[in-house]
Formats: sequence, structure tokens, C-alpha cells
Amino acid sequence: MDLSGSSIKLTREQRFLEIIKEICSENLIGDDCAALPSGQIFSSDMLIEGKHFLLPQMSYQDLGWKSMAVNLSDIAAMAGIPRYALVNIGLPGSISDNEFSELYEALHGCASEFGARIIGGDLCASEQLVISVTVIGDAPDSGAMYRSGAQADDYILVTGDFGASALGLEEILKGEKADASHSYALHRHLRPQPKIKEAAWLASVCSSAGALMDCSDGLADALIQVAALSNVGIEIDADAIPVAESVKERAAKLGLDYLQLALYGGEDYELLAAVNPECWKKLKLLPDFKTIGRVKNGSAVVLKRAIDGTAELLESSKTFQHWKS
Amino acid sequence: MDLSGSSIKLTREQRFLEIIKEICSENLIGDDCAALPSGQIFSSDMLIEGKHFLLPQMSYQDLGWKSMAVNLSDIAAMAGIPRYALVNIGLPGSISDNEFSELYEALHGCASEFGARIIGGDLCASEQLVISVTVIGDAPDSGAMYRSGAQADDYILVTGDFGASALGLEEILKGEKADASHSYALHRHLRPQPKIKEAAWLASVCSSAGALMDCSDGLADALIQVAALSNVGIEIDADAIPVAESVKERAAKLGLDYLQLALYGGEDYELLAAVNPECWKKLKLLPDFKTIGRVKNGSAVVLKRAIDGTAELLESSKTFQHWKS
Repeated sequence: MDLSGSSIKLTREQRFLEIIKEICSENLIGDDCAALPSGQIFSSDMLIEGKHFLLPQMSYQDLGWKSMAVNLSDIAAMAGIPRYALVNIGLPGSISDNEFSELYEALHGCASEFGARIIGGDLCASEQLVISVTVIGDAPDSGAMYRSGAQADDYILVTGDFGASALGLEEILKGEKADASHSYALHRHLRPQPKIKEAAWLASVCSSAGALMDCSDGLADALIQVAALSNVGIEIDADAIPVAESVKERAAKLGLDYLQLALYGGEDYELLAAVNPECWKKLKLLPDFKTIGRVKNGSAVVLKRAIDGTAELLESSKTFQHWKS
Repeated sequence: MDLSGSSIKLTREQRFLEIIKEICSENLIGDDCAALPSGQIFSSDMLIEGKHFLLPQMSYQDLGWKSMAVNLSDIAAMAGIPRYALVNIGLPGSISDNEFSELYEALHGCASEFGARIIGGDLCASEQLVISVTVIGDAPDSGAMYRSGAQADDYILVTGDFGASALGLEEILKGEKADASHSYALHRHLRPQPKIKEAAWLASVCSSAGALMDCSDGLADALIQVAALSNVGIEIDADAIPVAESVKERAAKLGLDYLQLALYGGEDYELLAAVNPECWKKLKLLPDFKTIGRVKNGSAVVLKRAIDGTAELLESSKTFQHWKS
């Protein structure tokens, strides 16, 4: 297996990102958010009907919540505190006043729950529903945390559990009603909870030393990103990856491998952190953080399975992409 | 003619704005930008293929420029200085690397020309091309200017000229090649110039007293908005509205009324200001500002024509709307 950069065919998104970096010569581009020296951090994400969500399979309440939550999660990914949000919506003519109210109440409700105020935005007509949210936050006193801060011997911690959101999506695609109360997996897919508080704790305990990101595109993608940007390798214990029992059971019934869902499924919006042994001693006492591996010298991101002693390289080609057209 | 609020049928955009205001109970919503007490101002606008622009009639260079310029114009509308921009793009699979480069170089070029840095954003797949830009700026030392600051006896000033952009759009819709070098009208439509510098001068001369907005939705709309939000009337001299000679001539050839284009055409991105007589004495000496009327007690926005002594009420129902689905 050849993992050298030059031989990997870049995805379209990666090629376009390279173009952007070349045009802007901007070192703020490339992490979850842009963090200014002033301590302000900015996140901006767009969700498009048919690409990121399906209507009418998803309710306007869930859609509004999720559109805000994924942006707040980017702020959490740098240990930031969300303050303000701007919301641009492209609306098809078919949306009623009631549906619009449901959508906007959920956007506002999610922002409020995590301490942010919607202060503006734009409405316009569109064939598909488009929701573009910008969140403005403040870095913690100890500074924003980046993907690039991992060092050899750091411990790899995660919040929450993995694979549930991807399973929820599978259920929706199989025709399950997209109702967050129907199952844990559906709840996790439709109502992601940005880990603002957990990220703030972690930054406080570690004085922002280490690496942090959110797992919006899956655990494997996050591990690969942190390793690449920190110039380190990572070794993960497959058995230590938290996966809910109900997800394991349901995945088995659907003939799905829960570990594949956990690694490559995406949209869990949990935190992945690399922290030094001193911080780790404090953080491992908190139930919110689970240890799943260690940072190593080198560049390989390896998954070890104790049960059969095997080790496999995690593959970026399998990582979750919204970029499917 | 009955202009009382209750009898006017709200447009869909207006109804949805009312819903937003009710949900957010947020006094920052409703002007060109959200201005924070800290002095930061935020603008966010979305442009959608088929609604705001037509491909392939418009080049990617012009589209990139215009997408950034309309947001910068919102910053100018509050007399702000642009600092940073975030750009979210939803991209159809058909866009090539070269086309994407052209688009992004123009976004970056426009931002740079007016002092702003693109510091982040999001790329995703979409059926239609969608460009959502957020610009972060600083209010001038004397404070942001609002639509609501007009007072009786203020003079109404504008920058630039009106109707050219709407004429440019007419030409494109009639099959003219959308090339900014072909005519003044096309240049004005495709390459709007945000009036950052002029707004900063005005705020400096007036210590931010008075009212300011940009005429993105047409001169008539801006006059009606300033009057309504300031609780005043406005009287405009039709002959004083600046319209380029080439626009008058071309409009006549196409059988269009240039004054209608100037009042209701939209997308001129010029400034409209209401300033007190003391400030006006200083500003009228600057060639960038033209006096077109006075602020009056009452609530009527009246257009007077010296040639026949007539006076007509400007109508909000005729104002330019992107909201056509």
C-alpha cells in the first residue's frame, strides 16, 4: 500500500481547496474554523437539499437544529465559545409559513441552547432548500486548539460514541421514518449535540496544548487529518472505540459492520483530541472522554485489533464525504 | 391610494422576515448588516444560479467579483471598513478546475481591492451553483450608520448614477453577450463597485449622524426603507436623480423609461444618505455626492417632476426583488 502524497488521486474537493490556498496564500484556511490573532473564531458551512439532507424524509425542526449544530461543532472543534450566528436561506416556493417557522425556530433554539444569538442573514428564492450558517465565537483564554498540535506519546481521546449517525442515515435510506424519537441512531443523526462544553473543559485542563477537531466526516478521517497536519502517526485500539450497544445490534441485523460505520460513517460530531500524558491523567477521570489510542512517531494511522492481533492502515479513500454529486 | 401598513399585502420575504424577528426578538436584524456594540459589523448574502445570476451568460470572473462586491456594499451601507470574508460555495459537478479558479480569483481579487481577506468557508456539491459570502468589518470611529437616522430637513444625497445595472440586465436578457467591456450598463451590472471609501468619508464628515444604506434593491426601495425606519417623509426631485447619458439613450432605443430603471431597477449598489444641513454644506462640495431631495415631516415618499409640476408617491410594490421564484 502506497500512502505517499503524490500517488494519491486528490478528490475534487481537495483539488479545489488547493486552488483556494494558492489564490489566497492564507494560513487561516484549512482547520475547522478560521481563528484570528484577536481570539475570534469563525465557522461557515452550507447544507444543500439532496446533498446533505433529504426532504420530506427529514423534518424542518431537525433540519434547522442540525444546520446550526454542525457549525457550532466546528467552533467546539477549536475549543471556542459560540457567540453569534448569521443564517442565509435559499427557499423553494413550496415552503409554507409554518414550515419556515419550524425551520427557523429550530435554528434559533439550537443556537440559544449553546449560547449563540442569530444576528442576521439573508433570505432568497432557490430551487432547492439551501442553508448557509456562519458562527462567530471566541477562543478560550488559553487559545484556540488546532488539528496540528499532536505530538508523539500523546493520548488519543474521544467524546461520545461512533457509528450511530451513519446507522441512522442507513435507516432513513431504507425507508425508516426520520423521527429522532424512534431510535438512538436516528436521534444521533438528526439531532447532533455540539460538544462545546467538553471542548472548553479539555482546553482548560490542557491550557490548549495538544490537538483537537470534530469528527464530522468520520473518526477515521479525523485521525488521518490530525496525523497528517501534526506530522505524526497514530495507533488506535479497535476495541476501545466507543460504539453504543444498540448500534452494534441494529448494525448486525442490517448486515452492516459496526466498526466500519464508526470509522467511516461520519456525522457523529464528536471530539477527537490528542493530549500529553500529564493532561491525560486529569482528563481520563472525566466520564466524557474515552481513551482510544496513542500518538506515535512516523506517519501511519494504524488500527489494531487485540482479538486477532491484526493491524490495518486507515484509508482516506474510504472516509465519509458530503462531496457526492 | 391607501398606504397604511395593514392594507399592504406583505411579500413572502417580508412575511418570513417578520417570522424571524418574532422568533429571535433580536434588534440587530433588519438593517444592511448586524452591528455589534463592540464595533464589529457582519454582512451575509447568498447568490443562487437561476435566481441572482444566469450561467453561462455571466462569466465566472464577473460572478466571483459580484458575489463579493454585493456583500462589501452592505458593509459600505453602514460606513464600515471590511476586514475578513468567509465564502461557502455549492458547486455543480460540471464546473472545471479552471472555471473554479476564475471564480475564486475574482472573489479574492474583489475582497483584496477593498481591504478584506478571505479566511475560510466551505465547499460542497450542489445541483445549482450557490455562493454564500459573509463579510466581517469594523464600524468607523464615529460608529456605524443606520437606515433609521434620517430627520426632517436632512438633505438626501446619493453616490454614482442609477438605472445602468438594470439596463445591463435587460441587455443580457435580450441576448447581449455579458461582457463588462461592451457597455457602461453591462459594466455596472457585472462589476459593481462597493462605495467603501465614499461611505467612510461621509461618516467622517457627519460623525455618523444621519441615515445611510446602499441601493441594492433600487433607489425607490432605499428611499422607502429610510423613510419608514426613520419615521419621516422624503421628497425627491426627479430631474436631480443621476442617470448616465448612455443609459438614457440606450433605454430610449429599447423603449424603456430610464427613470423607471433608475427608481425600480435595482443592483446599482450606490449609497443613499440623509445628512443634516451642516454636514450637507461640506459634502456637497465633494463630486462623489449628488443632492436629490429633502427629508420632510410625515411619511410620504414623493417624486416631484419640475417639467410638469406633478408629484407621485413611490411604490414599494414596484421595487426590485430577487425574490422571484
